Amino acid sequence: MIYKAKDIAQILNGSVEGDENISVHKLSKIEEGESGSLSFLSNPKYTSFIYDSNASIILVDEGFTAERDVKPTLIRVKNAYDAFAQLLDFYNQNKANKTGVSKNASIADSAKIGKNTYIADQVVIGENVVIGDNAKIYPQTYIGDNSTVGSDTTLFAGVKIYTDIVIGSNCVIHSGAVIGADGFGFAPQDDKNYRKIAQIGNVIIEDNVEIGANTTIDRATLGSTIIRNGAKLDNLIQIAHNVEIGENTVIAAQSGIAGSTKVGKNCLIAAQVGIIGHIKIGDNAKIAAQSGVSASVQEDSIVFGSPAFNAREYRRSYVHFRNLQKIVNRIDNLEKKLKGNS
Amino acid sequence: MIYKAKDIAQILNGSVEGDENISVHKLSKIEEGESGSLSFLSNPKYTSFIYDSNASIILVDEGFTAERDVKPTLIRVKNAYDAFAQLLDFYNQNKANKTGVSKNASIADSAKIGKNTYIADQVVIGENVVIGDNAKIYPQTYIGDNSTVGSDTTLFAGVKIYTDIVIGSNCVIHSGAVIGADGFGFAPQDDKNYRKIAQIGNVIIEDNVEIGANTTIDRATLGSTIIRNGAKLDNLIQIAHNVEIGENTVIAAQSGIAGSTKVGKNCLIAAQVGIIGHIKIGDNAKIAAQSGVSASVQEDSIVFGSPAFNAREYRRSYVHFRNLQKIVNRIDNLEKKLKGNS
Amino acid sequence: MIYKAKDIAQILNGSVEGDENISVHKLSKIEEGESGSLSFLSNPKYTSFIYDSNASIILVDEGFTAERDVKPTLIRVKNAYDAFAQLLDFYNQNKANKTGVSKNASIADSAKIGKNTYIADQVVIGENVVIGDNAKIYPQTYIGDNSTVGSDTTLFAGVKIYTDIVIGSNCVIHSGAVIGADGFGFAPQDDKNYRKIAQIGNVIIEDNVEIGANTTIDRATLGSTIIRNGAKLDNLIQIAHNVEIGENTVIAAQSGIAGSTKVGKNCLIAAQVGIIGHIKIGDNAKIAAQSGVSASVQEDSIVFGSPAFNAREYRRSYVHFRNLQKIVNRIDNLEKKLKGNS
Repeated sequence: MIYKAKDIAQILNGSVEGDENISVHKLSKIEEGESGSLSFLSNPKYTSFIYDSNASIILVDEGFTAERDVKPTLIRVKNAYDAFAQLLDFYNQNKANKTGVSKNASIADSAKIGKNTYIADQVVIGENVVIGDNAKIYPQTYIGDNSTVGSDTTLFAGVKIYTDIVIGSNCVIHSGAVIGADGFGFAPQDDKNYRKIAQIGNVIIEDNVEIGANTTIDRATLGSTIIRNGAKLDNLIQIAHNVEIGENTVIAAQSGIAGSTKVGKNCLIAAQVGIIGHIKIGDNAKIAAQSGVSASVQEDSIVFGSPAFNAREYRRSYVHFRNLQKIVNRIDNLEKKLKGNS
Repeated sequence: MIYKAKDIAQILNGSVEGDENISVHKLSKIEEGESGSLSFLSNPKYTSFIYDSNASIILVDEGFTAERDVKPTLIRVKNAYDAFAQLLDFYNQNKANKTGVSKNASIADSAKIGKNTYIADQVVIGENVVIGDNAKIYPQTYIGDNSTVGSDTTLFAGVKIYTDIVIGSNCVIHSGAVIGADGFGFAPQDDKNYRKIAQIGNVIIEDNVEIGANTTIDRATLGSTIIRNGAKLDNLIQIAHNVEIGENTVIAAQSGIAGSTKVGKNCLIAAQVGIIGHIKIGDNAKIAAQSGVSASVQEDSIVFGSPAFNAREYRRSYVHFRNLQKIVNRIDNLEKKLKGNS
Repeated sequence: MIYKAKDIAQILNGSVEGDENISVHKLSKIEEGESGSLSFLSNPKYTSFIYDSNASIILVDEGFTAERDVKPTLIRVKNAYDAFAQLLDFYNQNKANKTGVSKNASIADSAKIGKNTYIADQVVIGENVVIGDNAKIYPQTYIGDNSTVGSDTTLFAGVKIYTDIVIGSNCVIHSGAVIGADGFGFAPQDDKNYRKIAQIGNVIIEDNVEIGANTTIDRATLGSTIIRNGAKLDNLIQIAHNVEIGENTVIAAQSGIAGSTKVGKNCLIAAQVGIIGHIKIGDNAKIAAQSGVSASVQEDSIVFGSPAFNAREYRRSYVHFRNLQKIVNRIDNLEKKLKGNS
């Protein structure tokens, strides 16, 4: 795919400054730009790179003023960052255009497959599964009996969906994610053995959700584990049975949420956070990385620590923690003085 | 599957109070009960729900006394929680009744497959593998050469078992679990490169063990990594080479145990715990979430923190940590007063 | 495979002391030695085991002097540990000698497969993939379009490689590892939804790299996420988009590194460490287990804590943290005395 500056300017509704016939075949960061690549300048911290860049084309904001000569052709657009993201999407969609149902896939006769789907080699689709239009199911993915996958959803290679799971439209689930394994429920017996509690609920993933590689979302004991519309989960996250994650909440890698906890909407949960079971995290809450949340969190609050509390107070206490040797020295001095005094 | 109250009462050895012919087709939590569903009441905290529940049938303890009218049919049983768990099992077993060996599975000629097994599409079974009676091997699972799987064991979709692994009877291993990858052993060389130490041991998983989704259990350098009878491991756990996990020990999600550590029986290891290598965790020990255990733990003790120590002392120190600003203020005051005094 | 003492001595360039015709068929630890097994003695802590060992052959250092009778045949070598590792390799290579391309693999016509490769059942290889000589691709592995796998590299069962990924020579990637899933990039919108930022970069894994089971390495937004020559990554690790891991750096299980961070060479990152994005970790740095690194780390330094700082200072502060109750008691006493004084 080779594009000329004038064609890109037209797509982005921008204006060319320089050679309008120069062409590019790849996208790059401004500091790594080379001949044939298109970059962008948005963050002023990177402005210096534009004067030495070997990129053929650079997108800049309308108001950008060069302080000295710029070699690349410029395309001025309303918002260079957004315009570049638009080109990334365009490039990506041209790559991920697979369709067709492989004859090497195992698809139950009772399954219903939508129009214009991609169902790859070695995929296994169980009884009564419903796959929506334009869904893309990459190789070696498994979809258990009675599960549904919405339209325009992509399951990358090796995703494992157990039985009775509901996945919405326009979702992306990355390789190795496991949706619907049994919740971790065992009843201790008098002889110290544990009896397994059957987990007969399911998982519901609403629309526009992204789930990272090797993340695990367990099925509910009864009822549903729910991931609400627009939530984004990174890699290697653990979501236990009967948890609910609110709309547009973002969770970074390697965090874990224990059973029956309800997380509100628009929350930001940083990486490697642990949240115990049966609590509530209010809307818009933020939880700092590696925190261990052992009690409910009010909406709009920010917590840190293990156990977690107010993040500003945690940071203040932590400064004193770093200085504990000095603090103890001061107490030593006080004790010496007082001894001298008495 | 539709059942009448009188039939359920017979299965559970209980007595019906209300319409013995009312029927149900699903199980639900008491607070989510709807027409056609069966719930239970065990925890007194939930008693208020029984008066408004739309469930058709509710299991209650023999001694339960209603304080006002109850609309659903009641079935009185010795222990409502246990009876409900019994129904969950019954329901679950009816769902998971797959049998038969798929013609799309790749099974080595030298493998021995027991009676009444389920071996699904795209399963790969290596040379000399032995699969016990009633085992269920879901799609896309791999079992390497010379490994054995005991009777009544279930491997869900996409489990990966390396060569020479021993898995006992009545185990459940969830999707994406990896059993028998190489232990992490490298010898530093003079040139700062590392030489891989071959890992030629194996993994032994005894009977009645459950292993969660995407958990990894590495093979021993020599000898065996061992998971003892009845141990329960949640999702995304790391068990390193030559570790031993004792009988009926429970480990929550995302914990990791480094090489050659021996964990006793009946231990409770909470989520996101890290345990260093070459130590011993005594029987019945409890380790709080996110702890980092850097030294052996005595039996029956409870530890917390990173590095971990006595949990009660950790919590006491942590209260002071939260108050460090006040503590420093007190020292400031003391210093001022003493200056005034001298 | 059965070997006599005299044959082993010849391989290892050692000398036999005892029955040179005694034979062994397995390797064992000295404390678990039994008839027919070969062990080694290197660490002086284990010397006592040699006098009671039932192993048939024991490798010892040239200078070893027995204090009493030793039953097993001894083979004296320059370095017993290295010699044993050499035998482990020898044993392992004889086990992992699979070759041949399965007719049950799905291989695109445009893919190029090297000589003497093993491509197992249910493997899926995409368009334009290049597989080097002697590579071993175990069952159910997926290699996306345009990716390359170097010579002598092993991908164990169920590895998932996305499109456009470059994997070097002599690498080992364990089951369930996911290489090239989308980086976690979303731009917040005014309506609190997030717009996905397309991730069109790739992952480059250089030579001699080992990657553990269920580890995830995300593709770059633009450019490449890079794992340099000789790096060793354990299980369940998260490497985010645009991260770079330096030569011969070792990372233990369950650690995570956020986007665009550059880790130097010869670093040691212990288990369950978290490192935030956009920082630098200098060469030879060491990061203690469970640390949370929130700022760049100088080369050759050792850090600990969350947030992490100098490890020696962290440990000193932590000793005081454990004693906070006593410290507070001392302040109480000072306040009482001062009150008495004034």
